[in-house]
Amino acid sequence: MLKGIHPLLGPELLHAIRTMGHGDHIVIADANFPSSFLGPKVIRADGVDAVGITEAILAHMPLDTFVPEAAWRMEVVGDPTAVPEVCATFQDLVNRLAGDFTVHSVERFAFYEMAKKAAYIVATTEFRLYGNIILKKGVVHPHEVYRVS
Amino acid sequence: MLKGIHPLLGPELLHAIRTMGHGDHIVIADANFPSSFLGPKVIRADGVDAVGITEAILAHMPLDTFVPEAAWRMEVVGDPTAVPEVCATFQDLVNRLAGDFTVHSVERFAFYEMAKKAAYIVATTEFRLYGNIILKKGVVHPHEVYRVS
Amino acid sequence: MLKGIHPLLGPELLHAIRTMGHGDHIVIADANFPSSFLGPKVIRADGVDAVGITEAILAHMPLDTFVPEAAWRMEVVGDPTAVPEVCATFQDLVNRLAGDFTVHSVERFAFYEMAKKAAYIVATTEFRLYGNIILKKGVVHPHEVYRVS
Amino acid sequence: MLKGIHPLLGPELLHAIRTMGHGDHIVIADANFPSSFLGPKVIRADGVDAVGITEAILAHMPLDTFVPEAAWRMEVVGDPTAVPEVCATFQDLVNRLAGDFTVHSVERFAFYEMAKKAAYIVATTEFRLYGNIILKKGVVHPHEVYRVS
Amino acid sequence: MLKGIHPLLGPELLHAIRTMGHGDHIVIADANFPSSFLGPKVIRADGVDAVGITEAILAHMPLDTFVPEAAWRMEVVGDPTAVPEVCATFQDLVNRLAGDFTVHSVERFAFYEMAKKAAYIVATTEFRLYGNIILKKGVVHPHEVYRVS
Amino acid sequence: MLKGIHPLLGPELLHAIRTMGHGDHIVIADANFPSSFLGPKVIRADGVDAVGITEAILAHMPLDTFVPEAAWRMEVVGDPTAVPEVCATFQDLVNRLAGDFTVHSVERFAFYEMAKKAAYIVATTEFRLYGNIILKKGVVHPHEVYRVS
Amino acid sequence: MLKGIHPLLGPELLHAIRTMGHGDHIVIADANFPSSFLGPKVIRADGVDAVGITEAILAHMPLDTFVPEAAWRMEVVGDPTAVPEVCATFQDLVNRLAGDFTVHSVERFAFYEMAKKAAYIVATTEFRLYGNIILKKGVVHPHEVYRVS
Amino acid sequence: MLKGIHPLLGPELLHAIRTMGHGDHIVIADANFPSSFLGPKVIRADGVDAVGITEAILAHMPLDTFVPEAAWRMEVVGDPTAVPEVCATFQDLVNRLAGDFTVHSVERFAFYEMAKKAAYIVATTEFRLYGNIILKKGVVHPHEVYRVS
Amino acid sequence: MLKGIHPLLGPELLHAIRTMGHGDHIVIADANFPSSFLGPKVIRADGVDAVGITEAILAHMPLDTFVPEAAWRMEVVGDPTAVPEVCATFQDLVNRLAGDFTVHSVERFAFYEMAKKAAYIVATTEFRLYGNIILKKGVVHPHEVYRVS
Amino acid sequence: MLKGIHPLLGPELLHAIRTMGHGDHIVIADANFPSSFLGPKVIRADGVDAVGITEAILAHMPLDTFVPEAAWRMEVVGDPTAVPEVCATFQDLVNRLAGDFTVHSVERFAFYEMAKKAAYIVATTEFRLYGNIILKKGVVHPHEVYRVS
Repeated sequence: MLKGIHPLLGPELLHAIRTMGHGDHIVIADANFPSSFLGPKVIRADGVDAVGITEAILAHMPLDTFVPEAAWRMEVVGDPTAVPEVCATFQDLVNRLAGDFTVHSVERFAFYEMAKKAAYIVATTEFRLYGNIILKKGVVHPHEVYRVS
Repeated sequence: MLKGIHPLLGPELLHAIRTMGHGDHIVIADANFPSSFLGPKVIRADGVDAVGITEAILAHMPLDTFVPEAAWRMEVVGDPTAVPEVCATFQDLVNRLAGDFTVHSVERFAFYEMAKKAAYIVATTEFRLYGNIILKKGVVHPHEVYRVS
Repeated sequence: MLKGIHPLLGPELLHAIRTMGHGDHIVIADANFPSSFLGPKVIRADGVDAVGITEAILAHMPLDTFVPEAAWRMEVVGDPTAVPEVCATFQDLVNRLAGDFTVHSVERFAFYEMAKKAAYIVATTEFRLYGNIILKKGVVHPHEVYRVS
Repeated sequence: MLKGIHPLLGPELLHAIRTMGHGDHIVIADANFPSSFLGPKVIRADGVDAVGITEAILAHMPLDTFVPEAAWRMEVVGDPTAVPEVCATFQDLVNRLAGDFTVHSVERFAFYEMAKKAAYIVATTEFRLYGNIILKKGVVHPHEVYRVS
Repeated sequence: MLKGIHPLLGPELLHAIRTMGHGDHIVIADANFPSSFLGPKVIRADGVDAVGITEAILAHMPLDTFVPEAAWRMEVVGDPTAVPEVCATFQDLVNRLAGDFTVHSVERFAFYEMAKKAAYIVATTEFRLYGNIILKKGVVHPHEVYRVS
Repeated sequence: MLKGIHPLLGPELLHAIRTMGHGDHIVIADANFPSSFLGPKVIRADGVDAVGITEAILAHMPLDTFVPEAAWRMEVVGDPTAVPEVCATFQDLVNRLAGDFTVHSVERFAFYEMAKKAAYIVATTEFRLYGNIILKKGVVHPHEVYRVS
Repeated sequence: MLKGIHPLLGPELLHAIRTMGHGDHIVIADANFPSSFLGPKVIRADGVDAVGITEAILAHMPLDTFVPEAAWRMEVVGDPTAVPEVCATFQDLVNRLAGDFTVHSVERFAFYEMAKKAAYIVATTEFRLYGNIILKKGVVHPHEVYRVS
Repeated sequence: MLKGIHPLLGPELLHAIRTMGHGDHIVIADANFPSSFLGPKVIRADGVDAVGITEAILAHMPLDTFVPEAAWRMEVVGDPTAVPEVCATFQDLVNRLAGDFTVHSVERFAFYEMAKKAAYIVATTEFRLYGNIILKKGVVHPHEVYRVS
Repeated sequence: MLKGIHPLLGPELLHAIRTMGHGDHIVIADANFPSSFLGPKVIRADGVDAVGITEAILAHMPLDTFVPEAAWRMEVVGDPTAVPEVCATFQDLVNRLAGDFTVHSVERFAFYEMAKKAAYIVATTEFRLYGNIILKKGVVHPHEVYRVS
Repeated sequence: MLKGIHPLLGPELLHAIRTMGHGDHIVIADANFPSSFLGPKVIRADGVDAVGITEAILAHMPLDTFVPEAAWRMEVVGDPTAVPEVCATFQDLVNRLAGDFTVHSVERFAFYEMAKKAAYIVATTEFRLYGNIILKKGVVHPHEVYRVS
């Protein structure tokens, strides 16, 4: 562990979000998501839920303000207006930690297509169905990094 | 870059100090140090000085309080009581960021022997001679990591 | 995830305990343990606690009955008779899932020496100090594996 | 071996089906199937028959209920309505272990095309011709995984 | 599969015994043997029993006639004169396929030491305890290889 | 070497033809063939002629009876009806070891295109020009493999 | 470090610009640039600013005089005529070290497309937004290399 | 193949003897020699006999004149004064191609010890027992290399 | 070094031209050629000029007589009829060592396209501009290789 | 090539001497030196002589002034006081480019032992016997590196 850094970020995930730049995407995937065969590098987070990983990433990674959409979730198959509890929690987390962003819903197979273009996929053991979110990294400004006082 | 994390920590160095545990050592080496052939994995920090890297590491990594010594510098060859300016700066940094630790001086070849057993060596472009320091990681307590408020 | 298998066992950890044989050791290490530089292959379990991983492993892996000791914890430095709460939980888990085994305490540096000879080290984010345990795999008997009824 | 897990699942195959997610395919191929040059990663199961591997996989992996077809076998060349004995056994196994799914027959070269898109191919030593099956993984629900009682 | 070659020999195992020379050892290990951490390269034979693999190897590999001993099994712990059924089968196989060789018994930990010096370890799913054998390759004479008539 | 196996099959070539399945191709190439840059994995057979390698492969690998053509040679540039001596030998070998198959001639650049899709290319030191042949693997039936009597 | 060579050029960056030839491009990217997922090999320069790296490269690498454009910067989003201070510094550096070249501005996404075709991307920790530049290597003439006098 | 170079030298073997220097050893091993587990890199020459490989190597590689012995063969087990026919051929070849050197005989296990220290082992399919030789490379003089006339 | 082989051919380059077959191309590139990013494997020949490497290759590799063109050089930009001195030397070398072949000139970017399809690029330190040549390997006939007399 | 850098330093050799630090050794070896099997990483410089490489390295790398000896050559076997011409040239070069250092002679096998501990061995095609030298890197001072004026 490290001081001042979210403890859910292991070495590989820290490395991953540190390499990401403005506009790169990261997928936080639930336990049933087909993470391993879509193309992007997979970071295993077995035993951790998607909400925890999302919190950990948003603690240190801003969302993109240059574009109208910077966060997406998977639409419920057969019930496009439903908002599962885990998705409502994603929306709350985004508002608390990243700002006034809407987590947009995306049809299942279109979501897979978005995932194929991401920088990384984090494979969690989130039990709840539809516990998937994609985040787009924004610009980090100098005043936001750690400064020795 | 990432919010709340020292900007001098690139992906590889962040990964490195996140993998270190209680009692592991890291060497921050100057531009003339024989970093590449001592054994430990080398992390290049070309163009950065040793003081900057030391500050960045101490910003997130505590020193070990279980043992009497947790930081060492290389003794000046032929002048064992000398304290080069860069070493005085190391001592100041340690006191400001890590606590009441003495940076102990170690004879040149004994310092190389210690370096051989370190977890990592960070190869900086510190111009100043004797700009080398070894740090021993301490325990990180739960209240020290990032917590979402 | 898979049916009938503990969900905390990700692909790498499942693979690991499946390759282990009679008498091989696995270390479940807390967040401060120096896991990466002792020698054995490290399996990251960032964000998971040591008790959860121990439960998951014991759900599928028996302890060794051929020898007098098959489980060990790290002795508290400076207080060899103390039994930290996390260690008491280890003992309960072992009794519930593996049988009548004592989790023996081992002095800190002797524990490191044992860890160097293990098959794997699982690096958890267990916050509690002394949240480390070593388990010795026993023989699996034919009636214990999955059988299609 | 491991307690409660089918013994035909070696470390690599366990790892494979644990990485698969909702909608991913796995091919269980007979001894004459051109497994090695179609693209997907091959897991060798030399000396084991296809029925055994299919049983082992279905013991821990559900089939997909979101789509009309979740299992396929290769159609006999020149006799499209034939149902070889090994294929009848596949159908029985699927019904016993996975539920009310039909194992659909697919023309030989179309079957190869499906195999090219699978996550894995398991190369068995099934002697019987047409001893090939493709399975599509379904969603695993929380009540289906191992739970410590 | 290949004509005239034992079908239990997959590509990796065929490659292995073809690389072995006069005096090299191969271990056929049961499902509980600690195969993975002794040093030699491991060839997985999950789902196959040790007797089948031994038969397949002896079908194509002679034993060494230059030395007094060319085959060994593990002695039963606590009962050094016992001959488990699987070991009797090993002895029969050796006599039928290799000639008049005794399968010598070796104490458990001495057997591990021999295994560490082998060329390969084949990890089977032999359920029967003590289902382990070490074979020493002999010289292959020109009249023994395949000849086009 | 191994008993009952053609001695020209080294470990890598044995491994190769064991991985091939029904319908896969293997190229046996002469000393001037551009083997290394066509795509398939190359197995070196320096110092061996193409006829010897073809004999060794056909000793253990059947040709495909499901399709009208299962063996091809390169047509002489500028003399399409010529049958070089090495090609006549290929035809004899095929008839003796594989059955009633014609070795069809293919124009030089079309032959290269076929070679690009093969599973393997065996690069021999066959001196004779046009000493190249492509073989298509057939089905191996249970009665053709090695059986312990 | 080396005599007569710019100290900001570490081993990997020296290696990189030495492998580049006439017409190859190198990107010097700021701290927010999405360096890692565009395709070219990334050279980390964490802790160094883009102006320093540009100076170091131009100290040893000429720009291309065969074509009308040999240096490019990213256009400010929403303000195409703006010239950020860091870009003015790039222009000064180019004029001082490389000659009479204009640093042309390129729209953000077109700049990404150019970056995808570069030989290397150097990922700096330049804090200033738009601190990105692409340089095209020119011909090195014999009189320009080091000569022992 | 290449002009003026022995055709039995494939790419790997040519590379090998070109990297060898004054005093390095190469083993040419028969079909029963335990080539793969002694340590040195193995170059397969399946299907070629040891005499052919020895001729090919001596065609381009001189033996060492700085030391009293530069070539060794394995002594017949149980008959130390025997000179098998293949060994007599080795002696003839050495005399014809390398000069007035004796091929010294070495006891079997001492020969293995010498082989462990060689630069390379060439694994031939030499059928004749004791068809093994070790050669020590000498100095190549300028007048011996290829010169354009 | 080796007897009878051109000394400028190091292990890697010898290996390369030995793997090439009839019709494969090799590029010998000058010090400014963009060798590293065109695709083919690059063999470094730093410190050697292109004429020396061309001589060394032609000493052992014939040019292709099956096609009208087997050698090409890069046309001078802006002066298509110019014949730089280094190119005249290439033509002389080809005539002396390979026979009556013309070294055809090819426009710069078309030359790059040809280079992308070559088997190898040899990166020399030829100072002279336009010191680039592409050679197409021909057939080696049995009487051209080394023969023990 | 690069401006202001010795052209004989290719990418790998530049990288090598840039990674070396105070006290590390580099061997420049002649064409007969057994470079490949002593342990250190080998950098090929086929076609270049040892004097050229030594000049190139000394152009950018200082020798060590902290110790009494910083350069060594191999003693002539059987004539310890001889100074071959190539060695005299080494001494001249060292004096011209590095300063007042003696190139000490070392007995052949002791020289090999020193070479085993070097950081790198550069394998040249120096024809002259005894064309070997070992150099010990010294400290580079800030005023010696490249500075933009």
